[in-house]
Amino acid sequence: MSSLPPLRVTGRLDRVREAMAEAGADAFAVTNLTNVRWCTGFTGSFGALVVGPDTATLITDSRYATQAPQQINDGGAPVDVVVSADLVAEGRRALADAGRVALEADDISWADQQRWADAVDAELVATHALITELRSVKDDAELARMAQAAAIVDDVLAEAQTMLVAGTTERQLAHALEDGMRGRGASGPAYETIVASGPNAALPHARPGDRAFVDGDLVVIDAGSVVDAYRSDMTRTFVIGAADDTARKIHDLVTRAQAEGVATVRAGVEVGAVDKACRDLITDEGFGPEFGHGTGHGVGLDIHELPSVRRGNTAILQPGQVITVEPGIYLPGIGGVRVEDMVVVTDDGCRPLTQSPKISL
Amino acid sequence: MSSLPPLRVTGRLDRVREAMAEAGADAFAVTNLTNVRWCTGFTGSFGALVVGPDTATLITDSRYATQAPQQINDGGAPVDVVVSADLVAEGRRALADAGRVALEADDISWADQQRWADAVDAELVATHALITELRSVKDDAELARMAQAAAIVDDVLAEAQTMLVAGTTERQLAHALEDGMRGRGASGPAYETIVASGPNAALPHARPGDRAFVDGDLVVIDAGSVVDAYRSDMTRTFVIGAADDTARKIHDLVTRAQAEGVATVRAGVEVGAVDKACRDLITDEGFGPEFGHGTGHGVGLDIHELPSVRRGNTAILQPGQVITVEPGIYLPGIGGVRVEDMVVVTDDGCRPLTQSPKISL
Repeated sequence: MSSLPPLRVTGRLDRVREAMAEAGADAFAVTNLTNVRWCTGFTGSFGALVVGPDTATLITDSRYATQAPQQINDGGAPVDVVVSADLVAEGRRALADAGRVALEADDISWADQQRWADAVDAELVATHALITELRSVKDDAELARMAQAAAIVDDVLAEAQTMLVAGTTERQLAHALEDGMRGRGASGPAYETIVASGPNAALPHARPGDRAFVDGDLVVIDAGSVVDAYRSDMTRTFVIGAADDTARKIHDLVTRAQAEGVATVRAGVEVGAVDKACRDLITDEGFGPEFGHGTGHGVGLDIHELPSVRRGNTAILQPGQVITVEPGIYLPGIGGVRVEDMVVVTDDGCRPLTQSPKISL
Repeated sequence: MSSLPPLRVTGRLDRVREAMAEAGADAFAVTNLTNVRWCTGFTGSFGALVVGPDTATLITDSRYATQAPQQINDGGAPVDVVVSADLVAEGRRALADAGRVALEADDISWADQQRWADAVDAELVATHALITELRSVKDDAELARMAQAAAIVDDVLAEAQTMLVAGTTERQLAHALEDGMRGRGASGPAYETIVASGPNAALPHARPGDRAFVDGDLVVIDAGSVVDAYRSDMTRTFVIGAADDTARKIHDLVTRAQAEGVATVRAGVEVGAVDKACRDLITDEGFGPEFGHGTGHGVGLDIHELPSVRRGNTAILQPGQVITVEPGIYLPGIGGVRVEDMVVVTDDGCRPLTQSPKISL
């Protein structure tokens, strides 16, 4: 692995404070741990971050008494650490001056919301995606990790070409890909690797099984890796032996639609336009109903992040966002094709982070 | 892999109806997908199950239009399938006659609870662990899967003994274990495999890194696998080369404490008694403060389930529950020992599902 620039979180809390003020809150109890990590650098599995106008307090338990202050220091944000297993009681203390406290309504459980409501005098404000919205724009250190995660899968997939022959099972190939990721320094797969062959390729969410490839199969390979918690995501579709006319036709169409989608990506464009570019081409050729999912999604610390690249999404693409473009056509009982790249949005267009060659069947 | 008996869910919905009635509800909107799976056999990643006094309706989206009815049929419970991406709108329809609707308060988000509250005329009842309580008791088909998941790790760990030498890195051994699980038919590790050596063994939640073993290291190996969604969990601690007196002493003590804990397990006993048996022995020898976590937990579809084997838990062990018994002693900067088995509770005592030999250093 090439060396990676350090991750710094400096400045992120100020952006969080702006967002919470816009939501009408003067404090924010952040309970989504991926969001806590993004704000502070803390990677533990238990904790909450209370953000006030001028203070920030990370509450976590004694397992992290040493790790938390170190990670806060490395991250570079001014955050106090309080060690306690009772997040709500400590949170109440940290929120003593607050009038309106934002909670992450899509993430906190109803039971926990009730606990905070019982403990805190302030009014609770249900907020949605405040931090995940901020997280969608990646800085250079984050992009370096995602590029490395993508490059690892490019290498692994190139090496696995020899397994694309009759007799290999889906599971064998999936294991080889995941082992290869780890061998190259990834901490693991970014999600359960999909290797879907023959009729299984018609299932967008197929899981690798013991089916052995046979000549003529389409094989959808959807694989990503994780480097320092950041993820990659890519799909290519291959054929075993010779492709028939149907396979060639839908593979060519999906490949062209995917290229149209990628060509549409640029800062300032509506996210939905990327979906439309892919979908229109596929629909014009009569395969609209066989493209039954959205065109893509943001990627980062989570495999599915904002923005959602779907029909009618009027959000505007921003420089530094990382999205997938992954149209597909699925013919039940026969097979399917999906082609996907992960790209970073730039002012002029986009830069692909996944770089495995596109093939034609 | 030996062949497994089919999983059947027949009868589970009736137990859910009893539990919801005890909670004062005449309907139940189940949104935790692991709980939906346990009730119905449906394994999809999107859906909700609405249980009424005499009906049950699984709502899921078009991706699962084929899979859901198949899995419902295989599971053997009477459940109608409705295909819709709008869980709340369809849920409202299915709940038209309900007066008090149970929600899983620890699982549903505050935002989703608000959506159900807006859509449904009935009163919402916050319930806690109704189904996870039922899930804690396993049937024979579930136990067969967990036994196979455990046996796979027994085999893998036996084969990996040759790697317990100076120079092997934590990560190499962890990868070998996880690859071995997959090679023997597990769908993957049940959690991130822990291989913690030397001073890292003092961290109960250490992640495998590039540290190479050196002579005298204690090496904690905590590994489980997944077979057909059911998990196993086991820990053994080894030494590289010769153990010093401290290592031998704490390894012997933990091994004895773990055996005491296992000997305490029996249907009808308070769960907390298992913790007490381990903890008293360790405390009597002066290492109480160095045993800083609970003694164990239930295992099943999730790696951490009910019951929690911790101090003072007055719940009563039931036949068919599967728990871990895993005391440990951790000496900061020096090393640590943990020994863990996963056992199934019986009327007479318990039956270990993990069977790797206990060693003495």
